[in-house]
Formats: sequence, structure tokens, C-alpha cells
Amino acid sequence: MPFLFDAWYVAGWSETLGETPVRITILGEPVAIYRAEDGRAIALGDICPHRFASLSQGKVFGDTIRCPYHGLRFDPAGKCVHNPHGDGTVPPGALVKSYPVVERHHALWIWPGDPERADPALIPDFSVYDRPDIVSSRDYLHVGANYELINDNLLDLSHAAFLHPFLAPESFAARSRTRVEQEGRTVYSYLWNDDEEITPLFRLVWDKAAGRGDMRSHMRWTAPSNLLLDVGVTDVGGDPADGPWLPSAHLLTPETETSTHYFWMVGRNRQPENEELGRIIHGGIKQAFETEDEPMIAQVAANMAGRDFWSMRPAILVGDGAAVRARRLLARLIREEAGGIPQPPESVAPEPLRVTS
Amino acid sequence: MPFLFDAWYVAGWSETLGETPVRITILGEPVAIYRAEDGRAIALGDICPHRFASLSQGKVFGDTIRCPYHGLRFDPAGKCVHNPHGDGTVPPGALVKSYPVVERHHALWIWPGDPERADPALIPDFSVYDRPDIVSSRDYLHVGANYELINDNLLDLSHAAFLHPFLAPESFAARSRTRVEQEGRTVYSYLWNDDEEITPLFRLVWDKAAGRGDMRSHMRWTAPSNLLLDVGVTDVGGDPADGPWLPSAHLLTPETETSTHYFWMVGRNRQPENEELGRIIHGGIKQAFETEDEPMIAQVAANMAGRDFWSMRPAILVGDGAAVRARRLLARLIREEAGGIPQPPESVAPEPLRVTS
Amino acid sequence: MPFLFDAWYVAGWSETLGETPVRITILGEPVAIYRAEDGRAIALGDICPHRFASLSQGKVFGDTIRCPYHGLRFDPAGKCVHNPHGDGTVPPGALVKSYPVVERHHALWIWPGDPERADPALIPDFSVYDRPDIVSSRDYLHVGANYELINDNLLDLSHAAFLHPFLAPESFAARSRTRVEQEGRTVYSYLWNDDEEITPLFRLVWDKAAGRGDMRSHMRWTAPSNLLLDVGVTDVGGDPADGPWLPSAHLLTPETETSTHYFWMVGRNRQPENEELGRIIHGGIKQAFETEDEPMIAQVAANMAGRDFWSMRPAILVGDGAAVRARRLLARLIREEAGGIPQPPESVAPEPLRVTS
Repeated sequence: MPFLFDAWYVAGWSETLGETPVRITILGEPVAIYRAEDGRAIALGDICPHRFASLSQGKVFGDTIRCPYHGLRFDPAGKCVHNPHGDGTVPPGALVKSYPVVERHHALWIWPGDPERADPALIPDFSVYDRPDIVSSRDYLHVGANYELINDNLLDLSHAAFLHPFLAPESFAARSRTRVEQEGRTVYSYLWNDDEEITPLFRLVWDKAAGRGDMRSHMRWTAPSNLLLDVGVTDVGGDPADGPWLPSAHLLTPETETSTHYFWMVGRNRQPENEELGRIIHGGIKQAFETEDEPMIAQVAANMAGRDFWSMRPAILVGDGAAVRARRLLARLIREEAGGIPQPPESVAPEPLRVTS
Repeated sequence: MPFLFDAWYVAGWSETLGETPVRITILGEPVAIYRAEDGRAIALGDICPHRFASLSQGKVFGDTIRCPYHGLRFDPAGKCVHNPHGDGTVPPGALVKSYPVVERHHALWIWPGDPERADPALIPDFSVYDRPDIVSSRDYLHVGANYELINDNLLDLSHAAFLHPFLAPESFAARSRTRVEQEGRTVYSYLWNDDEEITPLFRLVWDKAAGRGDMRSHMRWTAPSNLLLDVGVTDVGGDPADGPWLPSAHLLTPETETSTHYFWMVGRNRQPENEELGRIIHGGIKQAFETEDEPMIAQVAANMAGRDFWSMRPAILVGDGAAVRARRLLARLIREEAGGIPQPPESVAPEPLRVTS
Repeated sequence: MPFLFDAWYVAGWSETLGETPVRITILGEPVAIYRAEDGRAIALGDICPHRFASLSQGKVFGDTIRCPYHGLRFDPAGKCVHNPHGDGTVPPGALVKSYPVVERHHALWIWPGDPERADPALIPDFSVYDRPDIVSSRDYLHVGANYELINDNLLDLSHAAFLHPFLAPESFAARSRTRVEQEGRTVYSYLWNDDEEITPLFRLVWDKAAGRGDMRSHMRWTAPSNLLLDVGVTDVGGDPADGPWLPSAHLLTPETETSTHYFWMVGRNRQPENEELGRIIHGGIKQAFETEDEPMIAQVAANMAGRDFWSMRPAILVGDGAAVRARRLLARLIREEAGGIPQPPESVAPEPLRVTS
């Protein structure tokens, strides 16, 4: 069982779910997501129990969705409530799985596991994107690799010096300070570059003469795969609360064992009306993800050729601390869930940003 | 063994087999089909026993076909009869399978099973297309799904109200009368809609003021997968022999366990000289098959993801009676054949059309 | 174990390996090939032992290659010699496989087996392409089939009469004389057509009135899959040393069990300055390989559908002697290597051409 089912995963952006139902495969399960006529988001197993058509190809009536093949209708609980044929008897067993859904922080969160445990308080805190002083934009990338390889990528940002020349100079690698912390199901990976020449990205957003500053790239990972990256700069020795700030969310939802839905979102606390600046930041990140990270991660997956990560005896560098913790924690959670061991309650989600220095 | 081998399957339309040999895979077996110089159709295993080249890429000499790789020639019995190398000795074991072939009702029928049992009288009766008062046209569709899913589709036409808006209004579903009968290896699925507004398709062919009529869609399925659909309309209470009539043949030949050759043919008993009308009818049906049925059936196959139909515990509706009977009968025939149990003789094929009310 | 590892395989043409590293999969193993700054060719396992990125996507520094993901550098022995992170400690186990490489006869030869046995004297002799009187050109073809099917193709040139109308008339098949010899790991397949009308290809290169001549097509195969074809023509009864000559090399390197790198090279001993003639000869051969041989061999592989060659009980013709010997010899060598049986020393490679009549 390679997945953690009792967890919240992003299934889409709120703003992109309109009147037309959509299909998304999550943890290997096809899911139909639609809005009832009252606007509520509903997620059902996408395979009709009659002749296995995709409900997501059907139409919405009230809060029900109608199968496109023979017209059975299912309600938000997944129960067939209308059969248009003959005397209209609803056959026993005409039931699909219903997934708890919460709309929060611009995203549609769904819970593939036991609905009894689907506590919305367990959704990690991305409330930074709800703040009035943060302008943000959202996007999506399909990655041809297991989600844990993306966790690895994000939890060791030392790769930026080699893979992302636009984001970090090579010389950063040797001068970075790092620290790793863990609390419950959350791992924090802190990375500082103090008193460095400001990178081009921050020159764009900082209405201040270019010069030197303290830069940080702090990653917060919450099991199984929702990450918040606090990237910011201050004057040398300055207060992190003052400087320009580009928080980005990296919300990874396993599609299958070998592919991942990568939902991402980037915000800024400067020049909220400057749409051109927003496009430049969004476009620069998009290019890094699509032309640098994704091909690299897909190539790594191809090189692994289906082999287990640990069976390949990876060499461990100093920067791998956070990723290794995350892998071990996640493996333990999946083992425990599969074994039926009760999970420790954790109703307090991590705070959105925690700047430590 | 998922297939019934002792049966006739359509391997092509007579009119499309010319001087060039063709290859078609049937029940997982690649078959070369060619015409001898005297015009006779011949079907041989397509893999040369020497170095496994495809005979269908070769040339015909008299009634033999020559392998394109090293030039061995095979006769209609599948025996190598010419070796162009050295002293011309024909190596022992140079033999390919020979398939019985019959040309009938515009089609090339082949028998993949025991040639001893290949009785042409077992070819289902599609003689309606040989009648002088019926004008017909033929076509072909490759379907990315197991043939039994197409049997299911055709044996429950109640899907038309949802999948084919051009062919039937949604309101048909609740008002249809149906009946299922079985005789030997044939299942009849009758469907009537009495005293309905004439559908657009029949308005095209009926040289009569549009109005109300009795409509029928009667399907005749013969194991394993050759179907004849009797679609027609009469005045309310009228005699089925009088009205316009659009009989269509649905000849399904399994290519592999996950793909099917769908040969189809549609005829009409009205306006034989009106070629434009023929194109409209043919085009409308083609569009329904290619843009509505095929994507639906392929999606169902994808949703099943290799699982067995019954293992998925399908919900059964009233309209599934014929399809369920066909599945059970076919499963029994395949089991019996695989187990070597003699089949009951059935030398009388079903009559072409049987209108019951 | 379908491959012979203790053997030299061509991994590329010397002239096409420039400053940019390349990746090639050989015997199922991804290999990074690059030139050190001093020009030396180096071949390393292409999967970084840290996070499994492809070294071939990285950059060369001196004689090391730097991983594109996190910047580890590896030396020609495959040892990690530089870690740019933290205190620069090189983690234990950071090692990739290093392949012996020799550049000879225009090609890069690599040895995937035990480096201790990588004796350059075992490289088959293709020194004909080093002679000042031979002008040659090189090319590459990817073949979607196991390399032994290409061995079969090349060791039985009787197929030319059927598959390559430009190269040989059909009537050749019955009039050819052949002989097969074997010495150590080399099989010779001789084929003569005496006193025949000169084929079009040789009319192009022979500055002599067209007429009749003695033609030969002698193949030398060295296990596992490097072949030299001596194709030439003389006056009837003439000396092979005098006539026009088109020696071609066929250097097959298994990529996987189902695909092959086919490096080929063709030379001529006539009109060295006539570049147009060179293009015609090269183009004619390229067309035969790409449009006639490769599709045939790929089709054979498809027809075999993963089955073992001998399990299909191939019919054996007189022309199969050489190919059958090669298959048996190769099977024995692979079995012995897998079983750890010491190979007989064979430090003398076969001579480049051996004209027997």
C-alpha cells in the first residue's frame, strides 16, 4: 500500500471548478468532482456501478449527477436516487464512494480515507494566501514520477544552485546555513544565505536600491505531501517581517504510483497592483518547474525503473536530512495505517509560516 | 481462454479485399487474407514458420502466397510448396494454419477453431442484405475494448436516450416496452415505443407527412458476437411489413482481449436511388458509433482496468436482461469448448428478422 | 542472462562525440560517455548514486563530470571526487561503474563486463577502414528488435533477392554458391554468384564497360554481434584483389532485449574524390536498411511477441547454416559467462577480410 489514505489532498483549485464536472485520479482512484446547483463541491467515485461509465462525463441535476450511459443519478452521499427505466426501481448495490470535500485556501481538499476521520482541522494551514496583503496566483503541473521524488526535490533546495541558474548562483551551495526540525507530521527545512548579493528575482520585487541582503528559503512539509515555502529577503541583519516575501505552496497529490498532480501557488507582499510583476514571477517559477524540475524528476524516475528508493542504496549528503526524515515518517504512517494502528490525533495543523533564525 | 474458437467471425468486407493481401488479427492470431488469382479468398496464419516474417507483406502467385523475407511459398492448405534456395528442398515443418473462409452476405467469414466443424450453415443469416429491395452500405470501426462490452451496449438500447440524442429522445426510456427471448445460441431483445412522435431519422426516409407512429428496435444476437438490428416504424397500429425499415448488422470480431473489429452495415427499404439519403443515414450512424458509442465503451474498458466484469459486481437494471443472458450463454460455450465438451449441433441459423409484438 | 558482458561493443562513432556528454543504453545499462578536456573518451554508469539523476545531462570539468542535480563530480574511475555542499565531505558509496573505452577504427568501443578482461586485442579487426585507399562513411540506425534477429538477417544474405530488389535480382537465390566456416568466436558465411550480369550498384563504381562478372558477398561475424561484409566484383575468373570493393561494417550493440543500436559503415576502393558517388552508395544502403531491413526485422520481433526463438521451432533452410552456428555459439558463451566458466583466451582477433573461393 504505497499511499496514505487518511489525509487531505488537493484535488483542484476552487476557481477552476465550474459547471462542468471534472475527473481526477487520486491515489489510483478515479474521482468525479462537480458543483451542485447551489455551488457546493461534491466528490464521488467516478465509476458508475451499473456498466462502469464515468459519472464525470454526465450532467448535474440539483445536487445529483447523472450517468451519461444509461441515466442513473447519484446524490452527494454516492447513493443512486433515480433510475429512468421501467418502473424506476433503484437496484440494490447502486452506490459509489463519496469523498469528504472542503474548500479552503483557494483549494478543493478531499479525503480518500475513512470519512469518519476527515477532520477539516487537519488541513495544513495555508492561510497566508487568505491575507489581504498577499496577492497570489495558481497553476498546475502533471509530473511523471512518484510524489516522494518531488518531496525529495523540495526538501533539499540546495539543488537550486545547479538546476535553477535564474533562482540561485552556484556559489550559494557552499555558503548556505541549514537546519532541520520535526514536529508531529511536519518537517521544517530551514536554509539561510546571509549577506549575499540580492538575486535577480528579488531585485524585481524590492523597491530599494539593489545591494546585499539576508535571504531565506524555509520549507515546511506536512505529511504526506503538502509544502509551504517561505522565500524572502531582508537588509543584512534585518527583520524577516519587513522584507519582500514570495511564499509558495507546493501541493502534491499522488495520481498513481508513478505520476503526481502538482498544484502550486505563489504570492507576494509587494506591489499588489502590478500585474506585469505578477506575471513575471509566476512565469519564472513556472518555467523552472516545467523545464528544469519536472524533466529532472521524470528522468530520475526513469533511471529508477520501478526499483524501490532505499533498495538503490542512495548516497546521503548533508542536505538530505529533511527529505530522509520525511521519507521515514511517511513510511511509518503508511505502515501504521495499513496495519490498522490508530493514528495519534493531531487536530492542530502547523502554523502557516514560522521564521526561525 | 477468453474466446470461442469454433465460430464464424467476419474478417473483412468482400468488396475491400482486392489484389493486395491484408493482415488482420483475430482472437489474438495474426491472419493473412488474400485472393488467389482466380478470385477465391484464402486465410492463412500470417507468421512464416522459417524466420517469422508476415506472409501478408508478400506477393500472390496463382493460389500461393510468397513470404517477403526469403521467398518460401505457401498454398491454400498452409503447406510450403516452393523453396527458391539451393536444391529447393522444402523443410519439414514448414506449415501455417489454414482457416476455412466463406464469402456470404457481403462479408468474409472465417473460422478460427477446428476446421472439421466449420459448417457454413452455422453462419448467422444476414440474407436481408442480399434482397433486391434493400440498399446497403458497409463500414468498419476499431474499438479499444473487449467485444463483450459492445455486446452489452447493443443488447441494451435504452442507452440511446442518454448517449444518442439524435436517435432517441430522453423521454423514450420510461415509455419503452421490452421483451427478451432465447433460442439456442441466439438471444432476441425486443424494444417497442408505440404511438410516439416520429424520430428525425425516420422523417428523413418516410415519404409521408410527419406525425406519430409505432417504432421498434429489435436486436438479434447470435453467439459469440454477430448482431442484427431491426429498426423500423409504422403508422400507429400498422403492419411492420409496410413501414420504412433500417436493418443494421453489427459484426464484432475480437482482435485481442482488449480490442475489437467492429464491422457494420446498414440498409434501407426506401428510396433506393437516393444516394444522398444513403450518405446521410450512413453518416449519422457512423457519427453515433465513432463519437458516442466507441468513446463510451473505451472509457468503460479503461475504468475496468483489466478487472473481470462480474468481479466488479455490476448493478442490474431491468434493461440488462438480454445482455446478461448473452454473457452467461457465451461463458458457458467458452467453458465447454475449453473443456472439450461436444457442442450441441445447431445447423439452422436464425432467420434474418423476426418481428414480434 | 540474455547478453554477453565480456565483449567489446560499439557505443558511438568517434567523430560524433564532441564536448557534450551523451547517454546510451547498452545491454540494459544507461551509460554516460564524455570527452575529458584533454580529449580522452570516458564512459561511466549514467545514474548518480545520490538522487539518481543522469550524469550525461551534466557538465565536464577537466576529466570529471558534474551531476546536473546537486553538483557531485565523478572522475574517470567513477569515484565521486567533489561535493560542493556543506564541508565538502564525499559520502561513502558515491561511486558509479567505469567502463573501459578504446577508440579504434573510427568507433568508440566499450566493455560492459569485467574490466580485468578488457583486452583491446579482442576488438575485431576493422582496420580496412584505416587504409588510405579506402574512403568510408558512417551512420546509425535504431532497430526495434533483439540484436540476434539482426545477426540472422546479416548471416543469411539470400534474403536480398526478395527484400532488396535494388541490390540483387530474384534469380540470384537459386544460383548462389555458399560455404560456412567457423574459427573460435568467428563465423564466416561465404556467398558467390559467378558469371552474373553486374548489379546496378557495381555499375556505378566500376569504371569499365558494364557486362558480366563474379560477385561475392562474404560475411564475417564475431561474437556477439560485430560483422564485416566483403562485397565485391571482378571480371569473370578475375582476382578479388583487383575489382571494385564495398566493404561494410555492421556493429550491433544491444540496447535492451528488444532493441538494438545498429552502427554501420561503408567504404569503397574506387573514385575516392567522387563525393557524389559516396552519397549515392551511402544513401542506397541507408534506404535498404531503413525502409526494407528494419521494418522487416521489427515485424518479425512483433510476430514473435516475446517468445523464445527456438521455442517457435523455426523451419531451417540451407542458407541458415551460418546464423544457426552463430546463435549456438553465442548461447554457449552467454551460458558459460553466467556460470562463471573461464573463457578460452583469444587474443588474436580475426583478420579484416579473408577472401576464399
